[in-house]
Amino acid sequence: MPTLTQHIVETKIVQLFDETHPLKMECGVELSPVHVAFETYGELNSAGDNAILVCHALTGSAHAAEYSSEDSKSAGWWHTAIGEGKALDTRKYFVISSNFLGGCYGTTGSISENPKTGKPYGLSFPQMTVRDMVKVQKALITYLGVTKLKTIIGGSLGGMQVLEWPLMYPDLVESIVPIATAAKHSPWAIGLNTIARQAIMNDPDWKSGNYYAFGQPQKGFSLARQIAMLSYRSDVSFQQRFQRERIKDNLDSKNYNFDWSNLFQVESYLYYQGKKLVDRFDANTYIYITRAMDLHDVTLDRGSIEDVLGSITVPSLSVGIDSDILYPVHEQKEIASRIPNSTYAEITSPHGHDAFLIEYDQLSMMLKKFLR
Amino acid sequence: MPTLTQHIVETKIVQLFDETHPLKMECGVELSPVHVAFETYGELNSAGDNAILVCHALTGSAHAAEYSSEDSKSAGWWHTAIGEGKALDTRKYFVISSNFLGGCYGTTGSISENPKTGKPYGLSFPQMTVRDMVKVQKALITYLGVTKLKTIIGGSLGGMQVLEWPLMYPDLVESIVPIATAAKHSPWAIGLNTIARQAIMNDPDWKSGNYYAFGQPQKGFSLARQIAMLSYRSDVSFQQRFQRERIKDNLDSKNYNFDWSNLFQVESYLYYQGKKLVDRFDANTYIYITRAMDLHDVTLDRGSIEDVLGSITVPSLSVGIDSDILYPVHEQKEIASRIPNSTYAEITSPHGHDAFLIEYDQLSMMLKKFLR
Repeated sequence: MPTLTQHIVETKIVQLFDETHPLKMECGVELSPVHVAFETYGELNSAGDNAILVCHALTGSAHAAEYSSEDSKSAGWWHTAIGEGKALDTRKYFVISSNFLGGCYGTTGSISENPKTGKPYGLSFPQMTVRDMVKVQKALITYLGVTKLKTIIGGSLGGMQVLEWPLMYPDLVESIVPIATAAKHSPWAIGLNTIARQAIMNDPDWKSGNYYAFGQPQKGFSLARQIAMLSYRSDVSFQQRFQRERIKDNLDSKNYNFDWSNLFQVESYLYYQGKKLVDRFDANTYIYITRAMDLHDVTLDRGSIEDVLGSITVPSLSVGIDSDILYPVHEQKEIASRIPNSTYAEITSPHGHDAFLIEYDQLSMMLKKFLR
Repeated sequence: MPTLTQHIVETKIVQLFDETHPLKMECGVELSPVHVAFETYGELNSAGDNAILVCHALTGSAHAAEYSSEDSKSAGWWHTAIGEGKALDTRKYFVISSNFLGGCYGTTGSISENPKTGKPYGLSFPQMTVRDMVKVQKALITYLGVTKLKTIIGGSLGGMQVLEWPLMYPDLVESIVPIATAAKHSPWAIGLNTIARQAIMNDPDWKSGNYYAFGQPQKGFSLARQIAMLSYRSDVSFQQRFQRERIKDNLDSKNYNFDWSNLFQVESYLYYQGKKLVDRFDANTYIYITRAMDLHDVTLDRGSIEDVLGSITVPSLSVGIDSDILYPVHEQKEIASRIPNSTYAEITSPHGHDAFLIEYDQLSMMLKKFLR
C-alpha cells in the first residue's frame, strides 16, 4: 500500500496528431486523431537536455513508476529503477514514459473510437510498427520541450524501440540501453507470437475481432498469455518455485495423482496469469502488438545488419540475461558487437527473460555505471 | 522410396491381457482386453538374452525401423539407429519396439473400442502412467521369450520408460540408455503440456472428447502440436532454417510486410507441422499421453531421488543435448550423477530436443561405445 512518502503521478493524455497533421504510418495510412498517454518523473531543465525516455514492453503502459492514486496497491512497472536516488535518478533526470502507439492504456489503438464509425477500430486499426511507435514518441518529447535524450532504455519490445531511435532521430539521442531484445525479431520468437495469436483467433468468442459488445475471448486470450509466460521464465525458476506440487495436499495417494481438478501448482499459476491479463488487457491489441514485434527488423529498407547497427555512433549498453530463452544472450552480444561504441553486460539470473524486471540490483549497478 | 534392399517389417498385434488376467493399472482400474502393437528386428537367440527394447516418445509408434510396406515412402522413426551394422545392430541384437499403452497405433488406448459400449473409450479410458506402459512392455517381452534385455533405450517420454524399467523389473535389465528425459517431469514441461491440452479442449470441435463422429478438433490440436514444436527445436535451428523469410517474395515492400496472408516461413512451417499431426494422430490420445508425462516421477511412492536413482545398479548411459530447452542438460547430468554406474554423454547440436532423432552420427558413436 502507498504510504505518505509515496508520490502520486497521474497519467496525462495529449493529442499529438490531428486531421491537418495526421500521423504518416509505415503501412501508408494517415492516422488521426492520435492521443498519447504519458507520465513524467523529475523536472526538465531549462536546456531541455536532461531527459531519459523509458520504453515499455508488450503489455506495459505509461505507468512506469510511482503510484497512480492514493488507493493504488501497486507501483509502476519499473518503480524499482525510476525515482529519487534510483538508477534513473529523478533528482537529476526528467524521465518520460508513454504508452506506445497501438497500446490500450490511453494512447490511440485498436480499442480507440474510429472517428468514421463512432465504434472501436477493432481490426480496422492500421497495423502499427515499432518505427511508428518511435515517431509518436518523437512528437511527444518535442511537445514536452525536450531537446536531447540523455538515454533511451527498454527491455524486450521496449528494446526494439530503443534500437530504432538512433537510426530514425540520431540528433536527439545521446546514448541507448537496449535490454534483452532483438535487432530483427527471430523466427523462434515469431513462432511463439503466431501461436499466441492463433490461440486468440481460435476462440469463437473472438468473433473475428468484433467481441466488444460481448466481452473478451477469455479462454483463447488467457491461453495466449500462458504461452508467453513460459517463454518469459526459465525451467530453473519454475523448478524453484513450483516443483511438482499440487493444489490439494489433503488427498490420498491415488486421488492426489488422478484427480484432474487437483492441478499442479504450475498449472494453477498459468491459469491465474492468463486470467489476470484478460482482466487488464485487450485481445485485439495483443494481436496488433505481437505483429508489430514480428515485423521489427532494423535492417528493413536500410541495408545490411553490419551497416545499420554500425551506423549507430552513440554509446550503447547492451544487456543480456543468461537464462533468457526468448531473446538469448547471443542476440544481445551480436547487437553489442555491431554497434561501434558499445558495451555488453549480462544479468545472471534463474528468472529468464523477465529478469530485467526482477533483478533490480544488477541492472541498477549497470545503469548507474553507464550513465556516469 | 524403398528399394529392393530395404526390408519390409509389418507391425504385429497381440492380446496380452484378458478378462481373467486383466492389466492392473496404477490408477486402480483393471483393464481388459489389452492388445499390443509391436515390431521386432533381428533374431532372438536361444538363451533369449540378446534383446534390446526401444521406447518411443509422445507421438511415436511401434514402427521404429525398416519399411512397413513396399509402397511405404518413409522408414521407421529410428531407422538410422536400428539395422544391420547400425548402432543397434540387428545382426547381433533382437530389437523390440512396441506402441505403448494408451497410444493410438495399435495398442489399446483411448481410440480403442470399449467392450462395454461398443464405442471408442474416449475420455472413459483409464489414465495410464509410464509405469503402466512398462508393465505392458514386460508382458510383451515375456510373450516373446526374452529372458534379459541387453539394454533399454529411448528419448524424451521414451527415456521416462527407460528409467522406470530397472526400478520395476531389475532382474530383466542389463543396462539402460535414457536420452534427453526427466526423472520427474519438470514444472516448465508440465506447463507446456497443460497449455497444449487447453489448446485442444478450447476447440469447440473437441466436444468434450466426443468428436469421433464429427472429425478431430483440427485447429486446437494443430495449435497443441505447434506449441510442442517450439519446445522441440531451438532458436538457432529456426534461425538457420527460416530467418525472416516470407512465403511470397514477388510483392512490393509494403505488401510484402503488411499482407498477413504473406506468412513468415516459420509460421507456414508450424501450420504444416500442426496439420501433419492432426492427419496422423488422435487428440484425446494426445491429452492422455501428456498427462502420463506430467504424472511421471520415479520417486513417487518410492523415496528420495537420491535413494531411488541410487538403487539402479546396472550400467547407464545418460545422454543430454546441449541446445535442449525442454529437458535441459542439467537434468540429464543430475540423472547421471545419481545413478551409481552411470556415464554422461552430450550431443552437440543446434537442433534442440529433437536432436536425438537428427544427430545420428554422434548418437551412434555413443551407443556403439556403450554397448561394447
